[in-house]
Amino acid sequence: MANIKLIDESEAVEAVLTIYNDIKQTFGMDFVPSMFKAMANNPAYLEASWNRYKVIMGPGTLDRKTKEIIAVAVSVTNGCEYCINAHTAVLKKMGLGDVEITELMAVVDLFSGFNKLLDGLRIESDILP
Amino acid sequence: MANIKLIDESEAVEAVLTIYNDIKQTFGMDFVPSMFKAMANNPAYLEASWNRYKVIMGPGTLDRKTKEIIAVAVSVTNGCEYCINAHTAVLKKMGLGDVEITELMAVVDLFSGFNKLLDGLRIESDILP
Amino acid sequence: MANIKLIDESEAVEAVLTIYNDIKQTFGMDFVPSMFKAMANNPAYLEASWNRYKVIMGPGTLDRKTKEIIAVAVSVTNGCEYCINAHTAVLKKMGLGDVEITELMAVVDLFSGFNKLLDGLRIESDILP
Amino acid sequence: MANIKLIDESEAVEAVLTIYNDIKQTFGMDFVPSMFKAMANNPAYLEASWNRYKVIMGPGTLDRKTKEIIAVAVSVTNGCEYCINAHTAVLKKMGLGDVEITELMAVVDLFSGFNKLLDGLRIESDILP
Amino acid sequence: MANIKLIDESEAVEAVLTIYNDIKQTFGMDFVPSMFKAMANNPAYLEASWNRYKVIMGPGTLDRKTKEIIAVAVSVTNGCEYCINAHTAVLKKMGLGDVEITELMAVVDLFSGFNKLLDGLRIESDILP
Amino acid sequence: MANIKLIDESEAVEAVLTIYNDIKQTFGMDFVPSMFKAMANNPAYLEASWNRYKVIMGPGTLDRKTKEIIAVAVSVTNGCEYCINAHTAVLKKMGLGDVEITELMAVVDLFSGFNKLLDGLRIESDILP
Repeated sequence: MANIKLIDESEAVEAVLTIYNDIKQTFGMDFVPSMFKAMANNPAYLEASWNRYKVIMGPGTLDRKTKEIIAVAVSVTNGCEYCINAHTAVLKKMGLGDVEITELMAVVDLFSGFNKLLDGLRIESDILP
Repeated sequence: MANIKLIDESEAVEAVLTIYNDIKQTFGMDFVPSMFKAMANNPAYLEASWNRYKVIMGPGTLDRKTKEIIAVAVSVTNGCEYCINAHTAVLKKMGLGDVEITELMAVVDLFSGFNKLLDGLRIESDILP
Repeated sequence: MANIKLIDESEAVEAVLTIYNDIKQTFGMDFVPSMFKAMANNPAYLEASWNRYKVIMGPGTLDRKTKEIIAVAVSVTNGCEYCINAHTAVLKKMGLGDVEITELMAVVDLFSGFNKLLDGLRIESDILP
Repeated sequence: MANIKLIDESEAVEAVLTIYNDIKQTFGMDFVPSMFKAMANNPAYLEASWNRYKVIMGPGTLDRKTKEIIAVAVSVTNGCEYCINAHTAVLKKMGLGDVEITELMAVVDLFSGFNKLLDGLRIESDILP
Repeated sequence: MANIKLIDESEAVEAVLTIYNDIKQTFGMDFVPSMFKAMANNPAYLEASWNRYKVIMGPGTLDRKTKEIIAVAVSVTNGCEYCINAHTAVLKKMGLGDVEITELMAVVDLFSGFNKLLDGLRIESDILP
Repeated sequence: MANIKLIDESEAVEAVLTIYNDIKQTFGMDFVPSMFKAMANNPAYLEASWNRYKVIMGPGTLDRKTKEIIAVAVSVTNGCEYCINAHTAVLKKMGLGDVEITELMAVVDLFSGFNKLLDGLRIESDILP
């Protein structure tokens, strides 16, 4: 159980409900993810965070699939189960199968190891020509 | 200065030198990155790691640019300066400019924040329909 | 289930029992938190840790509520479920509601994101005037 | 040196300049911190992030000093030098001396240790009465 | 439930089955740990990783028990439940009891705390004589 | 430069000086490491921490070299440069050469990678027979 109350649609104030509807429409889903229901304890925080979410994950110079892959790579490295589950599900819906997911995780595995090796040995950056 | 000796090409044993040459050829570079020169203190470790590197970063179901982006996302999340510098440089050589790099980091920023929020509030994964 | 035996009050040696009683009295609780029951596998470690706990969390220049907020912020950033639950409960007992907890987590969210952005872009500290 | 160009005031587009001025005024400083100059490579990201910064760090149920202390605790736990330096400086300007800063860090030290101990022993949360 | 299919022995291709048999023989176990069944979604990754595992954990200049202790210390610090459980079990099979495990975790606790304190205060390395 | 004043021997109060002398004698060194000089801003914290240090790192069921190896493994995983440098130096003084240090780091590399892979794929612990 969450450490705080999740604000359900039935009890949300008008401003929150408007954002909830935008979230459902943007994601093409018929429910509001719990993350946003938690944020709604502070409506201004929810609003500013949702606006920023749309800016960062919306159209730009990197395509959406690449951004979702980054989301998973970051969430795995930080060890956040909720985000791993949510964004792995998105990648699967986008067509990635177990082979692709394993390949993604293999790259995470590879660099997580190298990252620590390099920190541990205090290796300085190569002087690139 | 590194905490161990980096094994220079001039002093590398034959087996290590063969790997060094493969590294330079694979990367199209005329120097061996310090990471591998550190690993060469244990030639069997260098060999197994380099073989695995080629398997993971070589052709597969995700393209090379996507894998380099994952490498940067993971290295940023782990805070490894060497890998951040090395793989950001690779991305730049592949054509990503400051706008793309900033966009990549914005996604890392977004999810690193959300990861902690979700852990902190102990939000359980949504039941996906 | 824990990976080691938790030393129950019924089986604790005298020295450990004395500390257990001090813990219950200090916290105003009628049970000993499992963390200390685990530490009791090594009584000297329990004693030194409990003494240090009282020094650090006891009266000083920062008030107790601020210290509990730091405890939660650190535990969230490290992702420790036990400590998040325990110290969020303490904050609630001190009167913080869901709005305050959400605000605390929003600050954790904000800086966890910025921390990675700044590391990722290798931004140097501002020269303060 | 940063891995991307920092957008100086002299070369900023109008929309960015407006935000830069708001940043300087809000902080009561006569320079723009490098973090924002990096974000300005993507003006929409800068704008959404700055708006959210003001919401989260602005007036609410926790006072500003407490929020700055959380910022430092999180940044230390994540190991971000830029944020540690910036927000420790803010705390000092707010009147905290070396004794208070040491006390803050002692709490970070205490719980960072306990966090790992509890994870390592797989201790389950206490059932609170 | 895992986010990908685990490849069971009954459905593994010949090359994977050969590795599975080597894993069982090397560990003296009659089952294949789930980690390897996940990697088998990408047989080349499984093979390269298993070869490297044997090189790193095999005979060298540090004894096997020391390597298992490092495995636990790292896994605790990274917070990986699977590896903590697996390698704590190995240590117990090697004869370590709850007192030894607690002592190992006490060292992890001690340095995890100091690590953050030192980062937080930006203390520079001592100049060793 | 550190973010707080380091308390030099020449300006330390009596109680701190007594601990400083114990530190130098215990380590067989003629200087006090900066970590303790930082802690001395809060003498009670220094005292409780030094007492606990001696309990945890002193004689027990694990030998001193093993404890120093754990210290390095933890500090590398947490990315603390000060502790990596200090305790790698201790290991070298204890006779470990570059080959042993590389082998230690290879184990850190291996498990840091596997830790993230297992978290990323949400693999549940094996049911041990």
